Amino acid sequence: MPELRKDPISGRWVIISVERGKRPTDFISPSQKRKAGGFCPFCPGNEHTTPPEIIAFRPASTPPNSPGWTLRVLPNKFPALQIHGDLNKRGEGVFDMMNGIGAHEVIIETPDHQLSLSTMSQRAVEDVLWAYYFRLTDLKKDIRFKYVLIFKNEGEVAGASLEHSHSQLIALPIVPKTVREEMESSKKYYDSKERCIFCDIISQELDSGKRVIYENDRYVALSPFAPRDPFETWILPKNHESYFYPPDKSFASLAEILQRILKQIDKVLDMPPYNFILHTSPFKEEMNDYYHWHLEILPRLTRRAGFEWGSGFFINPTPPEEATKFLREAKI
Amino acid sequence: MPELRKDPISGRWVIISVERGKRPTDFISPSQKRKAGGFCPFCPGNEHTTPPEIIAFRPASTPPNSPGWTLRVLPNKFPALQIHGDLNKRGEGVFDMMNGIGAHEVIIETPDHQLSLSTMSQRAVEDVLWAYYFRLTDLKKDIRFKYVLIFKNEGEVAGASLEHSHSQLIALPIVPKTVREEMESSKKYYDSKERCIFCDIISQELDSGKRVIYENDRYVALSPFAPRDPFETWILPKNHESYFYPPDKSFASLAEILQRILKQIDKVLDMPPYNFILHTSPFKEEMNDYYHWHLEILPRLTRRAGFEWGSGFFINPTPPEEATKFLREAKI
Repeated sequence: MPELRKDPISGRWVIISVERGKRPTDFISPSQKRKAGGFCPFCPGNEHTTPPEIIAFRPASTPPNSPGWTLRVLPNKFPALQIHGDLNKRGEGVFDMMNGIGAHEVIIETPDHQLSLSTMSQRAVEDVLWAYYFRLTDLKKDIRFKYVLIFKNEGEVAGASLEHSHSQLIALPIVPKTVREEMESSKKYYDSKERCIFCDIISQELDSGKRVIYENDRYVALSPFAPRDPFETWILPKNHESYFYPPDKSFASLAEILQRILKQIDKVLDMPPYNFILHTSPFKEEMNDYYHWHLEILPRLTRRAGFEWGSGFFINPTPPEEATKFLREAKI
Repeated sequence: MPELRKDPISGRWVIISVERGKRPTDFISPSQKRKAGGFCPFCPGNEHTTPPEIIAFRPASTPPNSPGWTLRVLPNKFPALQIHGDLNKRGEGVFDMMNGIGAHEVIIETPDHQLSLSTMSQRAVEDVLWAYYFRLTDLKKDIRFKYVLIFKNEGEVAGASLEHSHSQLIALPIVPKTVREEMESSKKYYDSKERCIFCDIISQELDSGKRVIYENDRYVALSPFAPRDPFETWILPKNHESYFYPPDKSFASLAEILQRILKQIDKVLDMPPYNFILHTSPFKEEMNDYYHWHLEILPRLTRRAGFEWGSGFFINPTPPEEATKFLREAKI
């Protein structure tokens, strides 16, 4: 019997096809192994072909926009939003609009074209997380921005136009719908229970254990109860943290769990394309009791280009309890 | 300057990249021309390979599940939901779930493997709409069901696993998130203005004309103000109609506008893959003053598999005003 499950935060319903539960080998998606050759604007030596870097991790002896860096953050060469100008919020009858003001940046995670987040050093993953944090902290100062969306598209199927490992961020003058909904829903739960809904979920999941993939001292990785996609994985801080920051000024534990999960996903699903999205509180309400920042990782295994787009309703052929087992048992 | 536009019903924001506005020829997507040869379970003569038909349009002289039909409705051979059983709604701590009870049906729109909704006769399109209506009316009698999602995936990229032209329906014991949100949002608008928000939009669009692709006596086709996708098109009744039904017992006008729009899309975008989804009021509140049924057509031109999934935030490289012009001027 298939199951209908509801995600308690977003309120979306998902069909979990328990009987025809799909195993990892049932999914055919292009493996994201790096190819050799070809010109890459993100490789060292080609710094002059990109917009000038905003920040870079590099020895003090090397000048900006020259080789020697270990990580670079740049404006996107083809930005979806424009950094200069006024918002000019306006209406057109029943419609609302504003100028497309915002920042669109690229985080080049490594100088080595062959590496991915799962194969680079753990220290390099820490640096990626620091880059996210530094950019968030800097963009927060611009009063035009209400939210920064940090995400990664790994693989062409997942929307990456360049193979060289990178993440992106988009600073927005509005709070995106999904984030706003999550905030409202978790606030409503808090208003009724005086508890964070994510904290309750984490506590229940750690008790039952059946959807817990891995935990370390500070974070837990789990298959959500009502995942949209096979092998969807969330990483959350075990303690209540409403926004993304380095506890005790360290991202070591977060880098450890993130890289471990990505290695497990690579192992079980043969380096699938994936997206991840950082969910954190909007700038104006960073410190709060009801929202809990987390990272949602969505492997791109099924062609979800169908009715799911328009209906907010999903069919997932792999129960999260089975996905958990496969990931947990992966020999990495 | 790019624009940030808000869809007034869903509340989602979309970036419209005005400057690098993409023209139809900028999109490369696989053309959905029919291939010849190969076994097709939906072709006449192969009726025994499908589950028995629920209804069919066929001469009285032909027995069920034999050739001679012009349209067939069948249970999906691999249903996402199961028709028999109880809902058994239950909780698991903070989570909610129920048995996956529902109907999953396929509407085979034509016996001719080579035809699509845009190339079959207009009368055949009318029959497809009648089939939707008959199934809705029948499934409404099952008190377990709250909503029927009717949709079409045209082309493999859009999620179709078989080429032979067909639509699908899923009867659900819950109202999907997107529908519930649209109902709540339009009810809120009505509570404040005593008007249907869709009626207001239609009136404004017909006045300005800049996003109106086509209208006939009863329906209008327009590019929404804040489309998620290039060439996204909505078809709506011009008068207030809260749920999908045949006014004056005829679907002739609806078939005319639907087929015309699909022909224009095929012409301008070279038979792209697409999805359409029927948005109608849930069974329990079919007759109401605030919601307005409509059809949303979403050509699959861009690889939207990126961060849009998780953020509810979209980047659309084609302004709807330009899409409107291209579609309006298509010589069909």
